[in-house]
Amino acid sequence: MAYLNENYLKLQAGYLFPEVARRVREFCDANPEAAKRLIRCGIGDMTEPLPRTAIEAMKRAIEELGHRETFRGYGPEQGYEFLRSTIAQHDYRERNIAIADDEIFISDGSKCDCGYILDILGDQNKFAVPDPVYPVYVDTNVMAGHTGSARKDGSYEGIVYLPCTVENQFVPEPPTEHVDLVYLCFPNNPTGAVASGDRLKQWVEYAHAHEAILLFDAAYEAYVSDPDIPHSIFEIPGARDCAIEFRSFSKNGGFTGVRCGFTIVPKSLVAQTESGRRSSLHALWHRRWSTKSNSVGYPVQRGAEALYSPEGRKQVHALIAHYMTNAKILRGAAADAGLKVSGGTNAPYIWAGVLDGLTSWQMFDRMLVDLNVVVTPGSGFGAQGEGYFRISAFNSRENAQEVALRLRNLR
Amino acid sequence: MAYLNENYLKLQAGYLFPEVARRVREFCDANPEAAKRLIRCGIGDMTEPLPRTAIEAMKRAIEELGHRETFRGYGPEQGYEFLRSTIAQHDYRERNIAIADDEIFISDGSKCDCGYILDILGDQNKFAVPDPVYPVYVDTNVMAGHTGSARKDGSYEGIVYLPCTVENQFVPEPPTEHVDLVYLCFPNNPTGAVASGDRLKQWVEYAHAHEAILLFDAAYEAYVSDPDIPHSIFEIPGARDCAIEFRSFSKNGGFTGVRCGFTIVPKSLVAQTESGRRSSLHALWHRRWSTKSNSVGYPVQRGAEALYSPEGRKQVHALIAHYMTNAKILRGAAADAGLKVSGGTNAPYIWAGVLDGLTSWQMFDRMLVDLNVVVTPGSGFGAQGEGYFRISAFNSRENAQEVALRLRNLR
Repeated sequence: MAYLNENYLKLQAGYLFPEVARRVREFCDANPEAAKRLIRCGIGDMTEPLPRTAIEAMKRAIEELGHRETFRGYGPEQGYEFLRSTIAQHDYRERNIAIADDEIFISDGSKCDCGYILDILGDQNKFAVPDPVYPVYVDTNVMAGHTGSARKDGSYEGIVYLPCTVENQFVPEPPTEHVDLVYLCFPNNPTGAVASGDRLKQWVEYAHAHEAILLFDAAYEAYVSDPDIPHSIFEIPGARDCAIEFRSFSKNGGFTGVRCGFTIVPKSLVAQTESGRRSSLHALWHRRWSTKSNSVGYPVQRGAEALYSPEGRKQVHALIAHYMTNAKILRGAAADAGLKVSGGTNAPYIWAGVLDGLTSWQMFDRMLVDLNVVVTPGSGFGAQGEGYFRISAFNSRENAQEVALRLRNLR
Repeated sequence: MAYLNENYLKLQAGYLFPEVARRVREFCDANPEAAKRLIRCGIGDMTEPLPRTAIEAMKRAIEELGHRETFRGYGPEQGYEFLRSTIAQHDYRERNIAIADDEIFISDGSKCDCGYILDILGDQNKFAVPDPVYPVYVDTNVMAGHTGSARKDGSYEGIVYLPCTVENQFVPEPPTEHVDLVYLCFPNNPTGAVASGDRLKQWVEYAHAHEAILLFDAAYEAYVSDPDIPHSIFEIPGARDCAIEFRSFSKNGGFTGVRCGFTIVPKSLVAQTESGRRSSLHALWHRRWSTKSNSVGYPVQRGAEALYSPEGRKQVHALIAHYMTNAKILRGAAADAGLKVSGGTNAPYIWAGVLDGLTSWQMFDRMLVDLNVVVTPGSGFGAQGEGYFRISAFNSRENAQEVALRLRNLR
């Protein structure tokens, strides 16, 4: 009989968000009146309309496909040059970061790429993740057989966890032991923490000393307002030799339902075979896309390109400003309600301590039942997330203000 | 130092189509006059405009994303119910095939899914592919470490090849030995062959006897005109227990540049762990999508849905009729030129024998240099493809007629 990939059977029941959805559904079914006033501050999904310039660009591109003279079929598997060059120019070269157009690979989202990157990496690598952590980093490694079994607290054997605590302001230090791969995400999901240039320099130094690779998830970089906080790992000297960066149009352009992101794999980045032969990861990633994908739809790539036009940038800035005003309102209200809060100033997430004596899931239930507000329990992101919950600022202003009001009734 | 996935280093230089593209580029650079009259019958890419109904549906959906009341962010990771139910109803239940909505998984193309399916299958599986074969089946297995090294003829150790020859009308018989996984593709790329119901029954019987799984690629099913030829493996009794089917909107709706397809994993399909524990592959595939993807963009899914409307079906039929008329013209002209031809009657590909004394790549060069027509060399699809080349019918009528004229000058 054919074999299945039994690493999947090690996965903890239910990816976090489906479990949240299940509890919300059960509550709403049992409490139809309360369900009507439910406000979701759980999943980091956008609520505001797409920037108009992206809409118009996508509609024009679709119309092009309706005429023989302008029809396009398969595009380049690594993405269209018009988008790769626009990204490289505006996100990197204009900021004095040396990234070539063909070091940019267009994808259907950074969630996907965070998993797919394992395709080109060896199974021997020892890897580290922050704790708490975006579950995708962990679960894709479990699926690939890079871990042992799950422990009772939801952690897995074989992973080096980097505790993110109030002591280190939720930004982990490099470990004392050796690892080959490190997942980092700044601005952070779920804690909303950002890493200083000095802290990222420590990580690049660690990577050089250990010949490790940093897998840097910058999906939320657009939310950085502090001029001293890096937007990209490639702002740090030496990062081109030790880092891969993931970016997304989901959280700046509102593309969660459109699907587009990109990954930067510098040509200077190498890894080794078991026998010590060195080879370019760029070439492998290029081959991965040629063989396994036909890239992202043409209209979507035109939509992403439009976000970089002068008008598109203004509209993106307005979107970010909208959500960050929500973050300010929510952070303030949570603090006024007596909760210990962090995040929410350079990131759309507020990381709040639970009320005394509650677990994260109990706090989730309290918020759901008493305030009819959906949040995300911190323990769903890892053992160190126990005692916290995440409030997302992705909402309408009206909802953010209403949640702020309801937080006054928290007890 | 971090390790790379060294299975990638076993891959033969250049995926077939990039190599074709390279030779064409070199020829055109050296012969700018000939380049002007170049006609591409190589890659199976569409040339005709998208159906109008899909265009309008996508534009409407994009406009929805521009308004708060109708904005949609993340959709269900397995695809929207509106599309899953439409597919299950029209492609299956209306044809008396029992497929549930939630056995349909929406993806960004069947090329992707043919590779991703390996995520949920064990590395221990012994697998078989037809020869010649769509290179993606082989290369994704090489990348996953399921093969040995490449031999001189381009085949890999550890794969069971199923010869498709003129004797078996390019439709392979089940092997005598045991395998766990079998890739089948009908109507076939590259040979244009179709499998009878009787032959598919043999395969389902083989799968039951060996508890094997058939990975059935039906990307070209819309080109079947013969009423006796199955469109789906699930037309064969017992297939729900032993088959996964891949489908695409690329070749019926012209979505090569839009990106949408789907995969059917029946809930009745099981596989085993090393210790003999049986488990549902449906549950694993569901988890794979939840963890690694956020499905396909909403506008794209609305576009795919529109292909099933009465108007959409008419437009799809017109597209197929256009390409199949090309196939008839090209097949006739190739036969008149003295070539041995097959395919091209229930498939958009003509499989033609080369001129005496030439290899596939020499024939490719002859067609390029003498006729300025790009074809695909059969040997690029496998050792048994040597001595053949593929002519694609995806073209304008004018180009198909011009290629037919030029074939008169073949010598």
